[in-house]
Amino acid sequence: MDIIKHFQETLEENIKTYNFGQSPRELYEPITYTLSMGGKRLRPALVLLGCYLYDEDIRKAIKPAIGIEVFHNFTLLHDDIMDNAPLRRGMPTVHEKWNPNIAILSGDTMFVKSYELMMECPDNVLRDCLKLFCETAVKVCEGQQQDMNFETEENVTVPKYLKMIENKTAVLLAASLKIGALIGNASKEDADNLYEFGRNIGIAFQLQDDILDVYGNKETFGKQVGGDIIANKKTFLLLKALSIAHKYMKEELDNWIFAKDFNKEEKVTAVTDIYNFLNIKSLSETEMNKYYDKAFTHLDKINVPADYKKLLVGFTEQLRVRTI
Amino acid sequence: MDIIKHFQETLEENIKTYNFGQSPRELYEPITYTLSMGGKRLRPALVLLGCYLYDEDIRKAIKPAIGIEVFHNFTLLHDDIMDNAPLRRGMPTVHEKWNPNIAILSGDTMFVKSYELMMECPDNVLRDCLKLFCETAVKVCEGQQQDMNFETEENVTVPKYLKMIENKTAVLLAASLKIGALIGNASKEDADNLYEFGRNIGIAFQLQDDILDVYGNKETFGKQVGGDIIANKKTFLLLKALSIAHKYMKEELDNWIFAKDFNKEEKVTAVTDIYNFLNIKSLSETEMNKYYDKAFTHLDKINVPADYKKLLVGFTEQLRVRTI
Repeated sequence: MDIIKHFQETLEENIKTYNFGQSPRELYEPITYTLSMGGKRLRPALVLLGCYLYDEDIRKAIKPAIGIEVFHNFTLLHDDIMDNAPLRRGMPTVHEKWNPNIAILSGDTMFVKSYELMMECPDNVLRDCLKLFCETAVKVCEGQQQDMNFETEENVTVPKYLKMIENKTAVLLAASLKIGALIGNASKEDADNLYEFGRNIGIAFQLQDDILDVYGNKETFGKQVGGDIIANKKTFLLLKALSIAHKYMKEELDNWIFAKDFNKEEKVTAVTDIYNFLNIKSLSETEMNKYYDKAFTHLDKINVPADYKKLLVGFTEQLRVRTI
Repeated sequence: MDIIKHFQETLEENIKTYNFGQSPRELYEPITYTLSMGGKRLRPALVLLGCYLYDEDIRKAIKPAIGIEVFHNFTLLHDDIMDNAPLRRGMPTVHEKWNPNIAILSGDTMFVKSYELMMECPDNVLRDCLKLFCETAVKVCEGQQQDMNFETEENVTVPKYLKMIENKTAVLLAASLKIGALIGNASKEDADNLYEFGRNIGIAFQLQDDILDVYGNKETFGKQVGGDIIANKKTFLLLKALSIAHKYMKEELDNWIFAKDFNKEEKVTAVTDIYNFLNIKSLSETEMNKYYDKAFTHLDKINVPADYKKLLVGFTEQLRVRTI
């Protein structure tokens, strides 16, 4: 059986049976509801895989792995309040199903629970794991604030954008792998290289999402193609286009950005034409591949048998081609 | 110089100079703003005092003490969003001064920072302190949810109320003392007794607040006397009155509770008359003193010189008489 699939099933089972608490039920029902919405359990699987590379007995990493998943779901819960999102994975968000106050407070409780779970680390790595977990949590908050700021900020640059997605998305993937490795008693060098692998892979994933939003296959992408263009989302593609477009083309792009009334399909086609003219797809892919390549440079450096590295490569490739 | 005052000044200085972070400023300005609003620094002073009882070198307890204060202020920040409160200590609340999204996210960041600070515990007590901190944080969230539920719940009983104030207020005082004691290397028995001292004192303080809201001195209380009565707040006094009042008097009380249009002063006078008839002040004081007495039974049991115990007694007495 595929070891990653086995990890994911183990996590699913453990998440389902974990007792977060019962009373008051207004506090705990939203937690089990949020965690039952599914998802790929990607981050906790990375914790288990990080451990497995150094120690096949992954049992001591299960609770911390669930801690990472609970933390991730807490951030989604609070982000959904801030974004006023009605749905998450096709289901009503907590602030819609209950109310914003319950969403704030059950989110806070999930946050504590994620620490409690992370504290189930072995003694010898407790401080290192918690320290990394705290640093990561702060960066995720910073990334979310940067992302919110971008909505009204006029001078968002490509480097600023890359820093934002690093904070909001990549560092949690990086920390997941490193925490797993620490629990498996990896060397400091290996743990750091795994962190860098995860960080670079995370940035590459987000760039891929940006590309797919415009150039993805309608049937397999699962979201509306061009959604980012319609919403004027400051993605790598838009920021890159704005930075290299000459006067006339930049004005055309600005016209679409500031247009109040427009036909959605027409806007998507027009902006995509500009992207095509500017060769944005290829420029974005080059940037994405730079991060993939950097990630694999770090993977090369770690001291584990080739068979084990292949697990990580396989997992990454699987995610890389998931929606093209 | 009064040692407690010295603790409070040390804390104030350390809070003022602690670097929580700078960028993005929308995330960090609300944190320094919230912490600069003042307050008595009661909880962190209890951490330092708990340590001082066993080890006069309180330096290793300062960061964890600030962690407790940051956590407490985080809960106030999120509570203010939930209660839609415009002011805190006479200053605009964060969600008013900035906006609710910034208040949610800077609150979340404070929560992480409180863990980072708590992690500055010495290695030998790290796990115990963090475990207690997590358990306490969960109880504080539960207490806040219970308190929100009470607003619409019809069958709130005195025992339910006492459990709510224990969670929302008392356990954090208890944990503050115990964490300090653990850092000072107190015995497990002493640390547990200090926890029980703090827990009982905390419940007594809240009962005292309930009493003062009706029977306090207008000049020294600092809040509108009768505010709880006007707002139909389910305090110990109201719940006790509802539980012992006979048919006619209970109806009169209910009439005031369900009245939509009323003269505020008239309502306060009428409800206070009912309380007086039912001897509620004395019953509440008896209940409060039960908790004070229980607290001091636990204090008697701890193994520290009488002079040191006096510090704790003095601090408590000072708070006890603060607003009568």
